[in-house]
Amino acid sequence: MAQKPAIPKGTRDFSPSEMSRRNYIFNTIREVFSLFGFKCIETPSMENLSTLMGKYGEEGDKLLFKILNSGDWVSALNDVDLESHSLGALTSKVSEKGLRYDLTVPFARFVVQHRNEIQFPFKRYQIQPVWRADRPQKGRYREFYQCDADVVGSDSLYNEVELLQMIDMVFSRLRINIVIKLNNRKVLAGIAEILGVPDQIVDITVAIDKIDKIGMEGVVAELKEKNIPAEAIEKLKPILAIDGTIAERLTTLRELLANSEIGCKGLDELEFIVNQTNRLGLTAKLELDVSLARGLNYYTGAIIEVKAADVAIGSISGGGRYDNLTGVFGMPGVSGVGISFGADRIYDVLNALNLYPDATEEGTEVLFLNLGDAEATCSLKIIKQLRDAGVSAEIYPDGAKMKKQMTYANDTKVRYVAIVGSSEMETRSVTVKDMSTGDQEGVSFDNVVNYFTQK
Amino acid sequence: MAQKPAIPKGTRDFSPSEMSRRNYIFNTIREVFSLFGFKCIETPSMENLSTLMGKYGEEGDKLLFKILNSGDWVSALNDVDLESHSLGALTSKVSEKGLRYDLTVPFARFVVQHRNEIQFPFKRYQIQPVWRADRPQKGRYREFYQCDADVVGSDSLYNEVELLQMIDMVFSRLRINIVIKLNNRKVLAGIAEILGVPDQIVDITVAIDKIDKIGMEGVVAELKEKNIPAEAIEKLKPILAIDGTIAERLTTLRELLANSEIGCKGLDELEFIVNQTNRLGLTAKLELDVSLARGLNYYTGAIIEVKAADVAIGSISGGGRYDNLTGVFGMPGVSGVGISFGADRIYDVLNALNLYPDATEEGTEVLFLNLGDAEATCSLKIIKQLRDAGVSAEIYPDGAKMKKQMTYANDTKVRYVAIVGSSEMETRSVTVKDMSTGDQEGVSFDNVVNYFTQK
Repeated sequence: MAQKPAIPKGTRDFSPSEMSRRNYIFNTIREVFSLFGFKCIETPSMENLSTLMGKYGEEGDKLLFKILNSGDWVSALNDVDLESHSLGALTSKVSEKGLRYDLTVPFARFVVQHRNEIQFPFKRYQIQPVWRADRPQKGRYREFYQCDADVVGSDSLYNEVELLQMIDMVFSRLRINIVIKLNNRKVLAGIAEILGVPDQIVDITVAIDKIDKIGMEGVVAELKEKNIPAEAIEKLKPILAIDGTIAERLTTLRELLANSEIGCKGLDELEFIVNQTNRLGLTAKLELDVSLARGLNYYTGAIIEVKAADVAIGSISGGGRYDNLTGVFGMPGVSGVGISFGADRIYDVLNALNLYPDATEEGTEVLFLNLGDAEATCSLKIIKQLRDAGVSAEIYPDGAKMKKQMTYANDTKVRYVAIVGSSEMETRSVTVKDMSTGDQEGVSFDNVVNYFTQK
Repeated sequence: MAQKPAIPKGTRDFSPSEMSRRNYIFNTIREVFSLFGFKCIETPSMENLSTLMGKYGEEGDKLLFKILNSGDWVSALNDVDLESHSLGALTSKVSEKGLRYDLTVPFARFVVQHRNEIQFPFKRYQIQPVWRADRPQKGRYREFYQCDADVVGSDSLYNEVELLQMIDMVFSRLRINIVIKLNNRKVLAGIAEILGVPDQIVDITVAIDKIDKIGMEGVVAELKEKNIPAEAIEKLKPILAIDGTIAERLTTLRELLANSEIGCKGLDELEFIVNQTNRLGLTAKLELDVSLARGLNYYTGAIIEVKAADVAIGSISGGGRYDNLTGVFGMPGVSGVGISFGADRIYDVLNALNLYPDATEEGTEVLFLNLGDAEATCSLKIIKQLRDAGVSAEIYPDGAKMKKQMTYANDTKVRYVAIVGSSEMETRSVTVKDMSTGDQEGVSFDNVVNYFTQK
């Protein structure tokens, strides 16, 4: 009995037309990364579990796909009372490798491992799949691509400016209208300081990060629950209610955070980045949002988040500065800043708004119909010349009915159909049909290559 | 105590210069696939183990990387006496997914699963990594890329002709001299028939496939061991000793296999493919090799193998026709033919012969030195114009010493260094240094974009 084929839930096959659209996204991102001087690296799909575990929190550890040790993994359990051990302890006995969960931790591992071969500042980009054993749902997959660009080994804020320009160029090219939200971890630290609860910065930012979802009331309730004093909560309200242009917000925050050194530092950084970026001109709308936190424990300076202006789909890009990513691998004091593009969400946005250029899914330039062996033999010579000249061309391999061959031409979206029948062989000319207009014309054998290369 | 970072054995990190070289190979292959009208698809890294198991022989099953079921995998073993079950039975309790082992089985699964959306003949290519838990050794990795192109749903021998042309174009473009060896499974069946042992075709081909390694004597010994009658072995010797041009070999084989219908059919196919291919012209050397078998149980017609002429490294590409790949997934009678390029071996060949074009590892086009905030601010405006015009450009982010910045320029292989210092700001011109010649010249701000776009 034959198997009914299927793929694991949360994973996807990509057809030729889907791949054309995806490659349009990847190529756009890759080109922009290169224009900005970022270099491509790749790391293995598998990392040692010791590299991955503990880097994404307890929940993240559970979401790692773990690879069963090769060979006789059972013998590691032979003298073990399964019930007296934790799941984690037993897992570590039968698995020592996992699939990468993101591109950031493998990159930190890469930097430390190759520190002596790397020229700092190191501007790298990486476009590879990652895997998470999350519950699959609409827009969330167990295998998906991340497109990351980071600069490590440079404290300069010009990096932040360039990353914002890069975000702007990627989405301009993709014709997606975006809003870029900006914050700074030092401003958040300043706020916690001003409220008199510097040690509770995590509780505060986790709560205010949700203001879009749960509103001011919800945030206040959560802060009370975390035992933030009522007085501090009162002080926080005007900060969250800040309004106006970026310049106006900065002015208000300067007043509110005047007594916090770290807060002022954060505002200086924000101001530099905003001014430089505006001076260079940005297509995107830039916003300052003090409630923006994103993986707080990780970022130490700028925090960046990008949303599509015309589709409600969550963030489609984001990033920030981190000062100690490589510390856990024994290389402290290396500052980095980076952004990540969510290719799968960008794909959903482009699909929703139908923003692909017309040529994205175009097929082969010329399909030669197959009208018999003599004709095919003749056509193959011309096809070879076309390919040598860089024109994609193919022959319908079988001597099938004309209708079937034309259906193939239509379905695979070829631009031109070329016919070499007996009369064409006599006159040494090809009948070329433009599939978009239906127009036909004769082109002499000697002129076919010119005809297509000069289109 | 910080971890000392490492990656799993048999896997690799790829640095920017390695990625440049690898992408040169992938892009060359991808361009040729497109020129021939093949379309890109991708399949998930993970497949259900039911899709993968039993497709690569018993040894292959062991070499599959299996993924531990998420969540509480231990409970599936709770009431099981570990010692009374086979490793395979226990593995199937704790793992239901595996990493893909090649691109062929997932492709067959794809064709069957999407049969109603696919336009046949379906010409697909796929460039993705595969994983095998093989013992790592020189040139053999646990994660490596395959680059496959297949046509399914067409019996036409023009497909074989086109695949040979495609192989020829890929290696011509890569400037690797190759020998293409050709055989046909039907010829092997004909030989077994003529020898009077049609049922022992597998034993015979497995043995004669090794003739390059163990010589005629070794083959004879192995055939004896497999109980092939002495008379049959005697008949085989002249077949293996066949010499001369392809035409001469075909003539000899026509005589030897005259009484085998299937053998003659195989020779007809070979002759058609060779004649058509030669007529179109091939840069590669084409050879007919009746000892060539490759995964015999799989191929039913043409068998193709490619070796580098100037480096001893095994086959760097290969393929053939298979008539029932999708049968195991419930879709019988679909003929296919395909080839696979071994990107990692090709990479080793190019490295060994140093055949990369000079531009392969070129870095950013222009690096602007950072001589202070005013100068950087001025430079960023020019850099934006350059990028908008498609010229890759970057600024050294930090105000570091000139020597350090020039070292970065050298090590990252930038083509030009641009200097905007105080005197350049006064004269509104950039000093441009060509890093390959050392020549310097001044270019006015207004002319910088033209200067680089017209290079």
